[in-house]
Amino acid sequence: MADSTKRFSADKISGFLESALKAVKVRDDVIKHVAEGLLSASIRGVDSHGIRLLTHYIAAVEGGRINRNPQYRFERTASATGTFDADHTFGHAAGIEAMRKAMEMAKETGAGMVSVFNSTHCGTSAFFALEAAKNDFIGLAFTHANALLNTPGSTRTFFGLNPIAMAVPCEGEEPFCYDSAPSIITWNKLLQLRQEDIQAPHFSGADTEGSETTNPHEITQLLPIGGYKGFGLAMMVDILSGLLTGMTVGRDIADMYKTPLTQKRCLGQFYMVISIDAFQPKEVFKKRMKKLMDDVRNEPKKDINTPIMVPGDPEKKTAADRLKNGIPIKEHDLKALNSISERLKIKWIE
Amino acid sequence: MADSTKRFSADKISGFLESALKAVKVRDDVIKHVAEGLLSASIRGVDSHGIRLLTHYIAAVEGGRINRNPQYRFERTASATGTFDADHTFGHAAGIEAMRKAMEMAKETGAGMVSVFNSTHCGTSAFFALEAAKNDFIGLAFTHANALLNTPGSTRTFFGLNPIAMAVPCEGEEPFCYDSAPSIITWNKLLQLRQEDIQAPHFSGADTEGSETTNPHEITQLLPIGGYKGFGLAMMVDILSGLLTGMTVGRDIADMYKTPLTQKRCLGQFYMVISIDAFQPKEVFKKRMKKLMDDVRNEPKKDINTPIMVPGDPEKKTAADRLKNGIPIKEHDLKALNSISERLKIKWIE
Repeated sequence: MADSTKRFSADKISGFLESALKAVKVRDDVIKHVAEGLLSASIRGVDSHGIRLLTHYIAAVEGGRINRNPQYRFERTASATGTFDADHTFGHAAGIEAMRKAMEMAKETGAGMVSVFNSTHCGTSAFFALEAAKNDFIGLAFTHANALLNTPGSTRTFFGLNPIAMAVPCEGEEPFCYDSAPSIITWNKLLQLRQEDIQAPHFSGADTEGSETTNPHEITQLLPIGGYKGFGLAMMVDILSGLLTGMTVGRDIADMYKTPLTQKRCLGQFYMVISIDAFQPKEVFKKRMKKLMDDVRNEPKKDINTPIMVPGDPEKKTAADRLKNGIPIKEHDLKALNSISERLKIKWIE
Repeated sequence: MADSTKRFSADKISGFLESALKAVKVRDDVIKHVAEGLLSASIRGVDSHGIRLLTHYIAAVEGGRINRNPQYRFERTASATGTFDADHTFGHAAGIEAMRKAMEMAKETGAGMVSVFNSTHCGTSAFFALEAAKNDFIGLAFTHANALLNTPGSTRTFFGLNPIAMAVPCEGEEPFCYDSAPSIITWNKLLQLRQEDIQAPHFSGADTEGSETTNPHEITQLLPIGGYKGFGLAMMVDILSGLLTGMTVGRDIADMYKTPLTQKRCLGQFYMVISIDAFQPKEVFKKRMKKLMDDVRNEPKKDINTPIMVPGDPEKKTAADRLKNGIPIKEHDLKALNSISERLKIKWIE
């Protein structure tokens, strides 16, 4: 850990997140979801989608992009489906509320699907998939994002780094959790490579002509995993998150940072819940799920010192460390949080 | 087209497929689905999963692996979910029947999910997803397969090249269709590279130690797209297709070819159907879907002579050609079909 990074307990950070959101008059139930969403991302090591986003969100609330006091409107369009109007509040809050509706339906009908519209950035999709898994359902979560992914054969980007998330409960440990964008590296990884002047992995990025380059300073767009295969996954996610929600898609999606904070983003998310009981005895399934994860981990290793991991394992390892030793915050982010603290006149956690 | 390849009309091939399956006493309704499945794969250019498989299937019926006269058992476990016992018949037939059940439920409840168990090889997953899309639903299809995909960090394979398929209806043209395994290249592509002694693409294959190689003769396992990302996709598909159906998973799945043809494979498939009407006015959605596809195709090209394509476009192009000019069959496959014709005493199509 570099000297410029300090660690803080999850509890303390949680208190600060809540105070800050309270100070800009976000409604209590919304605050709860947002604080949990940001905190869980930071605990699991997904720092790009964790507490560092607070600065942006506070500005987005103050600018008017994010609604602090939403009037949700859920319409159950059929017994297993519904649409959820987020009324431009935080995607974290709308997503958890929508996932709960999907779970309620799945309890009755075996499956539940909810589209969320008039939404905005929702943080990690894992947060929603895990909400289902913690309640013993299989959860799938989809969201779109602004165009950063190169279109194979084109000079530029069209779709975003649209993630697919799936969480599955298992016996004896935290749920399996896959949450992944269809690019080789994340945008944050690129920014880090630029800062440290390190070459990007092969086939991970392209320049303004759409030609592959490993020079991070020349990379302006990310390449999809498996070329057209990852591109197709991104398109599928936009069909669910953009078209099926009635929101914008592809290049029409407002950029998170470049768009004025007065402007609503009108994003969409799509959530699916599967009742395990509708297909298999739940306890048998959860036992087999645990065995499957362990079987993979126990496969013969290439390097005896490098563990084989299943999706979610790196995050579980990080979470164990951070819950014990605190969540590291980099100097740059610390300064930003400190300045929020001063400006909003709320006590910083030190 | 090489001299060793001849073309035959889809109609004639269809007739031959039906006669051959009839000759080994497969039931008429099963024949219909299998012939359509094989033919549609061949028309769309997915030759690996097309009519060349007839030889294998006939042997599997005669060996007892595939049941020619299944007693299906569908249980509607909740209003939006059901389980479908394929009774070891062709996955093609069970899949279409299951998809129809899923569509019936989706009509009522907005969404339908069906797990298929006691199944076997089902051909292309696109066949099932497209069945939904042709009926104006969004269809998703998942199946697992025997272990050919390297586990990141391991010396060997665990999951199969488990495909994800999604088909979506649109205005004015055949549905969007994504159907893709989480490997850079297909197993058939590898066999072809070996035959022609051509190097494989970088990061597409690994040797018996799990080390990356481009030498097709040394490649014994395929590498996942995006490393652990593609691996995670394969695992997700096995959770749905194997665990949620109560079938085997991972390395326990019987190899299609190496397992004696007397032995049932006990595969599973998982199907999802989404009713568009439950989320958006269908005609608006289909218009926007068409526009999305065209917008992507009209993006600025890297090479003016190379079209930008969306998932399903290469198959549509091939289908247009093959429906007009006939389906090419390679000499090797032609010989095999001819020998079926002789042995089963059915008229070959020439």
